[in-house]
Order: sequence, then structure tokens, then C-alpha cells
Amino acid sequence: MTPGLERLRAARVVLVAPSHPGNIGAAARAMLTMGLERLVLVDPRRYPDPDAVALASGATAVLDGARVVATLDEALAGCVLAVGLSARPREFAGRVLAVREAAAQAIAHAEHGDVAVVFGTEMSGLSNAELARCGIVATIPANPGYASLNLAAAVQVVAYELRLAAAGGEVWRAPRFEPATVEAIEALYAHGTKTLSAMRFLDPRMPKRLLPRLRRLFSRAALEKEEVNILRGILARIDQLLGR
Amino acid sequence: MTPGLERLRAARVVLVAPSHPGNIGAAARAMLTMGLERLVLVDPRRYPDPDAVALASGATAVLDGARVVATLDEALAGCVLAVGLSARPREFAGRVLAVREAAAQAIAHAEHGDVAVVFGTEMSGLSNAELARCGIVATIPANPGYASLNLAAAVQVVAYELRLAAAGGEVWRAPRFEPATVEAIEALYAHGTKTLSAMRFLDPRMPKRLLPRLRRLFSRAALEKEEVNILRGILARIDQLLGR
Repeated sequence: MTPGLERLRAARVVLVAPSHPGNIGAAARAMLTMGLERLVLVDPRRYPDPDAVALASGATAVLDGARVVATLDEALAGCVLAVGLSARPREFAGRVLAVREAAAQAIAHAEHGDVAVVFGTEMSGLSNAELARCGIVATIPANPGYASLNLAAAVQVVAYELRLAAAGGEVWRAPRFEPATVEAIEALYAHGTKTLSAMRFLDPRMPKRLLPRLRRLFSRAALEKEEVNILRGILARIDQLLGR
Repeated sequence: MTPGLERLRAARVVLVAPSHPGNIGAAARAMLTMGLERLVLVDPRRYPDPDAVALASGATAVLDGARVVATLDEALAGCVLAVGLSARPREFAGRVLAVREAAAQAIAHAEHGDVAVVFGTEMSGLSNAELARCGIVATIPANPGYASLNLAAAVQVVAYELRLAAAGGEVWRAPRFEPATVEAIEALYAHGTKTLSAMRFLDPRMPKRLLPRLRRLFSRAALEKEEVNILRGILARIDQLLGR
């Protein structure tokens, strides 16, 4: 079964705090070559900028339609899946996949709503806190001795894999139920943090590691809407018990 | 059977008459990120050039080792296969494959000798005569309305596919921790059932469905040993609260 190239319309490319406007333009060009048109810039250092237009080389429609927002949360609003790119995927950052599999997952989720692929700064990539917002962490297999892809080059590879996945060349599995939105999952984590604190639940062997571990577990599962409701129901019941 | 990444050593990247030295540098960087080190320049307009070094961004060893030759035939000397890239594969240009299949062919041939991937000028790509020198013409699937990949971006995609092909499909593995045993997971479910009953947690919309839903969620995640410990710790803390 072919998902179809129209799925690409549900995909947004999010660049977090890009330093060089030329890279924004080159990323827009890379996107459009693969049929991606929705660009979101989180707190760009310089934008708009003539360097961006120059490097976009004709893909100015993508730049013209770009949204500039202040935070990653704004950029991800309304998405059913965020895929964060990392050259060095961290231990607790959620479900880690090679970009080919991650693209297949993103296209599968695009049946249900918007999906985002998220790229960090040129110098240091995405922070752990930013990667924690992403249900999937994707890595581009690279030379371990020199894994330094240019930002727009990384966008090109990811956009290419998204296009191939949308064209149906990939093995993929559609989620069976409606996936949870990023907001719903973040609200669950916020609720969980509050309730676990109220419970004074602390394991001396793992003081600060609890929440990242739970995030990692639930990202691997790719939570569905109904599951988030169940988990919040359990938390609400604990809240009631604590209130007595 | 895994060809192995050492096959990449047999692959050379040939740029025919590149106009902009910056693109040569960016191509060198793209190559090295994927473990390709052999660059051949056919009649470059400006080379060497400080723009090439600037855009290579640390991949200067590839530039230092680059060979400059006068003709495509010299660049292809000694190769058992040449793969020519084209955005608009021509009728008489030989065997046309998507870049993924072409990369697999190139890596298969690399068992027997050197292979070349050949890119044309920024403005017009490879000529028909140049494509005729290539046993395979490869195309990068792209947006038919805007298929204009930057030269270095095209090198990035091809180098990426060569690396994946050389890695033999065995792409990348996420770090895994010790998985939980079946017994530990069943003990967790038993504990959860007991505690949720003691909490009188019931959702009227899903009376009997709660436990199967939770099982489904956690089996998707493929629970690890440490995660089972965390979840049992949370349950034990609820038990304490209930006992007060």
C-alpha cells in the first residue's frame, strides 16, 4: 500500500536557532527538491536575510512561507510526531532510529496529522531537553571519524528519505489507533511530574534520572491518544488519594 | 552477506567541470561524512581556491588528496563501473536506476575494482556524451517541479546511499539496555492489577479493557529491566499511600 506523495504536505521542517541565514536558504532549497514546503524557524539569529534568499536559489516560496516562532513548543504545536535529528543520539533521548526507518515512521504518522523533523544549531545540534520533546530521535549513519554534515546537507538527506517513504518504497506500519499529540504527551509528563513529586516518589539509586527514563520508555511506545487518557486517569486517581 | 565499509575505499567521486570552488569544498565535506575520500576534478574552473577550503570545513584531507585531470576518460581510468548522475535521465544514456539501486550496484562492483560516481556541472549536469561513458545512469528521486539539488547536496545523498549499501543494510543500532524477563514483566502486571484495584481505579468507559490496553502499551515499548524496577517502585509507593 502506497502512502502517497501528498503525505509530504503534512511534514514541517523545524530549524532550531540556526546561526547562518545561508543555511536557512540552502535548507529551503533542499526541502523543495523533495517536495517539502513547510519551514519553521525557531529563534533564528538572522532572518530574513539576503544570504538566505541567495542560497535558496529559486526556492524562495519556501522562505516566503516560513514561520518564525520563539520556542520549539510553538514549532511543534499540533504535531502528532516530532523526529529530532542527532549525530550523537543520547542514552535517554527516546526511541532512536536510523533516518530511513524514522522517515517511514513519520510518513506513517502523517496519515493522522502533522509531523515535524527537527534540526538543531550548526555548532551543537539539539540539546537533550529539545530531543526529549521528540518521539523519535533519528540519526544519519555517518563516518564516526567525521560525522559533521552541513545543516542543509542533513536536511537534504532527511527530505530525500521522507520523499522515498511517501512514494511507498519503504516498509512501514500504520499505527492502529489515533496517536497522541505532542501537547497531550507533554501535558501527561507535566501531570506525572507533579503527581510523582506529591507522592514523594524518589529512588535514591536514580535521583534525577527518573523522568528521562520514563520519557524514553513512553517515546519508544509511541503513545496513542487513548493511552494518554488512561495514564492521566491513573494519575488523577492518585491525586484524589493524596488529597484525602 | 555484508560487503563492508572498506568497499568505500574503492569509490571515487568525479566532479566534471565544477564552476564554484565552494561547491568542491562542500562536496569534499559531504564525502568525508560518509567515509568517501577519493575526489577527482575534471577541468575545474577555479581550483585550488580558498573558497573550497572554507566550505570543506575540516575535510581538507579530501581536498589535499584530490586529483585534477583534463578529461572524464582520465578520471574514469581503471574503474570497473561508472555511475553518472542525472536529474533528467536521457533516453540513450544506458541503464537508468534510482540512486538507491545504483549505489547497491556500485558497491557490488567495488568487490572487483574501483568504481566512480560522476557529477556534471552546476548549470547543466552531465552531457549525453558524458553519460554515455557511464554503465549506469542514476537519478535522485525529486520534486518534478523543482529538481534542482545543489551539487554538494547531490553528492551528500549519493555518498549516504553508498555508505548504507556498503554497510549492507545493517544500518545502525540504538544502544539497548538489559531487557526485562517475561517473569519480571508478568510480576509487574500482577502488582499493577492489585494496586489499581486497591485504588479503585475504574473508568466506566472501559471496564475490562484497562489491563489489556496497558499490556499492549508496554509490550510495544519492549520493557527493560530498569524500567520495570521504576514502575514497580511507583506501585509500591502507591501501596504505601493506600496503607496509611
